[in-house]
Amino acid sequence: MAIVLGPNQYGKAQNHLVRVYRDTERHQIRDLTVSSALRGDFSAAHTVGDQKDVLPTDTQKNTVFSFAKEKGVGAIEDFALTLADHFIAQTPVADGARVEVSETPWQRIQVDGRGHDHSFVQAGDGVRHTVVNVDGSGADRRAHVVSGFSGVTVLKSTGSEFHGFLKDRYTTLQETDERILATSLVARWRYDAPYVESGEVDWDKSYDAVKSLMLQRFAEIHSKALQQSLYGMGEAVLEQHPEVAEVRFSAPNKHHFLVDLSPFGGENPNEVFYAADRPFGLIEATVQRDDASDPGSAWLAVPGFC
Amino acid sequence: MAIVLGPNQYGKAQNHLVRVYRDTERHQIRDLTVSSALRGDFSAAHTVGDQKDVLPTDTQKNTVFSFAKEKGVGAIEDFALTLADHFIAQTPVADGARVEVSETPWQRIQVDGRGHDHSFVQAGDGVRHTVVNVDGSGADRRAHVVSGFSGVTVLKSTGSEFHGFLKDRYTTLQETDERILATSLVARWRYDAPYVESGEVDWDKSYDAVKSLMLQRFAEIHSKALQQSLYGMGEAVLEQHPEVAEVRFSAPNKHHFLVDLSPFGGENPNEVFYAADRPFGLIEATVQRDDASDPGSAWLAVPGFC
Amino acid sequence: MAIVLGPNQYGKAQNHLVRVYRDTERHQIRDLTVSSALRGDFSAAHTVGDQKDVLPTDTQKNTVFSFAKEKGVGAIEDFALTLADHFIAQTPVADGARVEVSETPWQRIQVDGRGHDHSFVQAGDGVRHTVVNVDGSGADRRAHVVSGFSGVTVLKSTGSEFHGFLKDRYTTLQETDERILATSLVARWRYDAPYVESGEVDWDKSYDAVKSLMLQRFAEIHSKALQQSLYGMGEAVLEQHPEVAEVRFSAPNKHHFLVDLSPFGGENPNEVFYAADRPFGLIEATVQRDDASDPGSAWLAVPGFC
Amino acid sequence: MAIVLGPNQYGKAQNHLVRVYRDTERHQIRDLTVSSALRGDFSAAHTVGDQKDVLPTDTQKNTVFSFAKEKGVGAIEDFALTLADHFIAQTPVADGARVEVSETPWQRIQVDGRGHDHSFVQAGDGVRHTVVNVDGSGADRRAHVVSGFSGVTVLKSTGSEFHGFLKDRYTTLQETDERILATSLVARWRYDAPYVESGEVDWDKSYDAVKSLMLQRFAEIHSKALQQSLYGMGEAVLEQHPEVAEVRFSAPNKHHFLVDLSPFGGENPNEVFYAADRPFGLIEATVQRDDASDPGSAWLAVPGFC
Repeated sequence: MAIVLGPNQYGKAQNHLVRVYRDTERHQIRDLTVSSALRGDFSAAHTVGDQKDVLPTDTQKNTVFSFAKEKGVGAIEDFALTLADHFIAQTPVADGARVEVSETPWQRIQVDGRGHDHSFVQAGDGVRHTVVNVDGSGADRRAHVVSGFSGVTVLKSTGSEFHGFLKDRYTTLQETDERILATSLVARWRYDAPYVESGEVDWDKSYDAVKSLMLQRFAEIHSKALQQSLYGMGEAVLEQHPEVAEVRFSAPNKHHFLVDLSPFGGENPNEVFYAADRPFGLIEATVQRDDASDPGSAWLAVPGFC
Repeated sequence: MAIVLGPNQYGKAQNHLVRVYRDTERHQIRDLTVSSALRGDFSAAHTVGDQKDVLPTDTQKNTVFSFAKEKGVGAIEDFALTLADHFIAQTPVADGARVEVSETPWQRIQVDGRGHDHSFVQAGDGVRHTVVNVDGSGADRRAHVVSGFSGVTVLKSTGSEFHGFLKDRYTTLQETDERILATSLVARWRYDAPYVESGEVDWDKSYDAVKSLMLQRFAEIHSKALQQSLYGMGEAVLEQHPEVAEVRFSAPNKHHFLVDLSPFGGENPNEVFYAADRPFGLIEATVQRDDASDPGSAWLAVPGFC
Repeated sequence: MAIVLGPNQYGKAQNHLVRVYRDTERHQIRDLTVSSALRGDFSAAHTVGDQKDVLPTDTQKNTVFSFAKEKGVGAIEDFALTLADHFIAQTPVADGARVEVSETPWQRIQVDGRGHDHSFVQAGDGVRHTVVNVDGSGADRRAHVVSGFSGVTVLKSTGSEFHGFLKDRYTTLQETDERILATSLVARWRYDAPYVESGEVDWDKSYDAVKSLMLQRFAEIHSKALQQSLYGMGEAVLEQHPEVAEVRFSAPNKHHFLVDLSPFGGENPNEVFYAADRPFGLIEATVQRDDASDPGSAWLAVPGFC
Repeated sequence: MAIVLGPNQYGKAQNHLVRVYRDTERHQIRDLTVSSALRGDFSAAHTVGDQKDVLPTDTQKNTVFSFAKEKGVGAIEDFALTLADHFIAQTPVADGARVEVSETPWQRIQVDGRGHDHSFVQAGDGVRHTVVNVDGSGADRRAHVVSGFSGVTVLKSTGSEFHGFLKDRYTTLQETDERILATSLVARWRYDAPYVESGEVDWDKSYDAVKSLMLQRFAEIHSKALQQSLYGMGEAVLEQHPEVAEVRFSAPNKHHFLVDLSPFGGENPNEVFYAADRPFGLIEATVQRDDASDPGSAWLAVPGFC
């Protein structure tokens, strides 16, 4: 028996970068948090402490900030791909790189009915994410892009049922055809390999459209379970977005319990609810094409989805 | 020397209540977190463990949920005042009550350009708060209302300077006439006593107008310091809102440091910034009328402002 | 009516400082988070943006780190007092200063039954705090020291009752003579003015003794309510520590609900509990000497206790 | 092309359970947070909203609390395995179950030099975790146990170097042979399949020994990089614990930057440090036996390690 180094990666996490575009008086800003990591045969650093193959995490940080000027910051997917390819090229023993970018959305402050030129307020309707994994370089290069959002909290005050479920001796839950359905949605979708390679995806446009469509379907679907709502949301995305190979959801069922007002002589026709914190149902589901490209390392270290 | 009980209060904190109005198919929801507390001579409970004067915190919780049906939930200030008066009336030794309500805003999900009837998404642009303190009842009753918001993060990408400051041997900061100004704003304002007593304030309307005005002034003011921006924001509120007696701000100066790209051969004309977490400047200021009503217990236990 | 500047303060919050003492091979470390703030007539900065009276928060930060070397870091109360006096002296219009220091405790890692010379692990049994408020300087100087801890979570699995309480139409709580009592305790105590002025308090020793005594009394007291436990803990401190003028507690009642196992044919003789998050009871109480020194600004901006 | 359901699981997350053993006057407590999830062919629930195969998450919650009485709570690994097997047996379409248990450690409060019978204080030196994944039942059953801890923050004030690293045009980091090394360690180790199946592992004893050994090795190793420290820690565990097949670490490099005191006329011989929050280096590494059992689904949804 020998003891050996197994899977590993290292990098600089959570570089908080704000890029201002001031080409005209009407400024634009992009607010990113960038994490990079390299993987490969870094055995020497682990077993004997030899750093000759290790591009320091401090250098990775410098590169992130310098690229924000040199290459510019457009869609976060492009920025992440550029960084990943660069880090692989700079680090001979690296056989893969992972770059995660989260973007906090900002809106212009309204003054007299018009968005201000250089004053902004955080929008707060969720954070946009991408995790890019690149394996190899040159002819062998394979790039994976998984994008999505977190922190989008939605609620339906009617149009949600839950009944007909499996029962055993520990089941006390009552069946219902009228409840509140709420979740703080995390969604991630993998872009299909040919679309990633073609470089033709308009990432910003695709993100906005997929997010809007998911919210719309959540609203429209009469829900027999959170699972059904999620599936319908993912199905709509796959039907309308050929660039998306699969969609994954992680959705806490934020329980809203009807308060029993009968001790106080009151009725409660689905009007007063206690919103509980823990425990919560947690539904995780994937909706995919049966002919989708192989995911490879696409989901490697995607928080909450591996 | 004797050992005695000093100031005290007790209650139930963070009742998370969602109230659905379903009178028509177009539902409305209000999402509140309610904390109540009673103060007075509760010596027996403390010194000998006798609970005869203590209305249990569990009862306070029940009352919050039951009142959401019995009295309804309109503006959070009205709901808090109703609860405070009730708790004082129910608890003979209580000479005061504090009720804090925070409201999470929701928007309708857009479907085909129109807000959906019963599907909502959290807006995320800050949380609305009120802290109501009522002393006594009947002719001696005195009610205080302090309202405001937290979690409103704003940024100006230009129009901000900082120079001409006091220097000593520990000063290394460079003066600048061009920087990013950003803060995660917490604001609270106290309603003037006659307006509270008259019952004539339209709380929802006042809240929306004050918040919008603060954001507008933040955008418009060319800032020589965060202090100056805050003062100007408070001043505008007092000029346009006679119902407001004073405004208080707690504003972390979220530093955005210009990244030095010269080691990499680059320039950085105010385009690439590192957004730091800690330490941060913290500016706290009050703007008030010199003839405002006496605050009394208004600011008692207002988080961050006492 | 005129609009004027009211109470205000500004400073640098949360300087995270680690001081290593390496005079011998057996190192010592102190891990502090320091926040400073100045108050006084800073009207010019607010109303016209003139910074001539403003010692920048960046300078305050530099001073904190430089004093860690120049003056050394002993007890956090001494470090805070030294900084507060310095800032008042450096800033002519300042009439007061507030310095808050939190200390994260570390223990030596055990190797072969002995604490290692230079390797440490965080202890995790609460954070030590002090808030120092100094008004004026020279003959008029008045210094206030409020120390304490947060994050000390304690639980009694028996020896706790709750009954005999006031009831109204919203009361459904059952009386009990057997329950779990648990809280995540925050305690702060004010040192008596003559002791602060004499400079004779051994802050580290006093802190350790007061904290231990509070835990011991929590354990020993057969509790008829959390209020009674807190009062007894404070009373013991005042009896044994003449240097302490008053003790304040903020204690969330972390409810542990007995789970009803009867639907599954089981009994539950106080063995299986559900630990709830929200809502929670919140008990706040002061135990004081009736002849204690005047608190003055001692409790100004002490988080959770004003 | 068809759209189909892919990998999925559902369950009840974060049941906070406190189990009191009161067989004698000297009580014992175990404080667990339990999350369960089932995976399998739950297509009907997703595609048409038919719940006939779905054991509700509410039933899973009830089972967790009831089993705490029926089966008792010993080592968290045993409790998790028992629950996982039960859920698979109760749910015909489930082909696998995942049960995660986190345990918060408590110590007895010291009174007169002795631990109290029924009063406890949270220890705070990290949280113990296990994630159990069971596939199938009967002859085909395969059980995986991954245990570990989080929140163990360690620091070496000397005995750490970092030099000889790869450089490129973005490298500005200075080499050093003297720095602070600190991390908030997350460690997970997989138990070897034969040991899991034999039922012979003393989980509590193994956990305590592995954790102590890791801390000891962190202290003893003169570090040329965090990677080397981690590898040495894992190697020692594998050498001394045949029951462990592999060890994985996720270790943020908590940077402590030496403060430049030269502007203030001071020297800083590794005494005063600024402890930064973000960005941070993040080192993730696996140390494994080259003949270890196949991990299968062992690392499925282990937070931070997949």
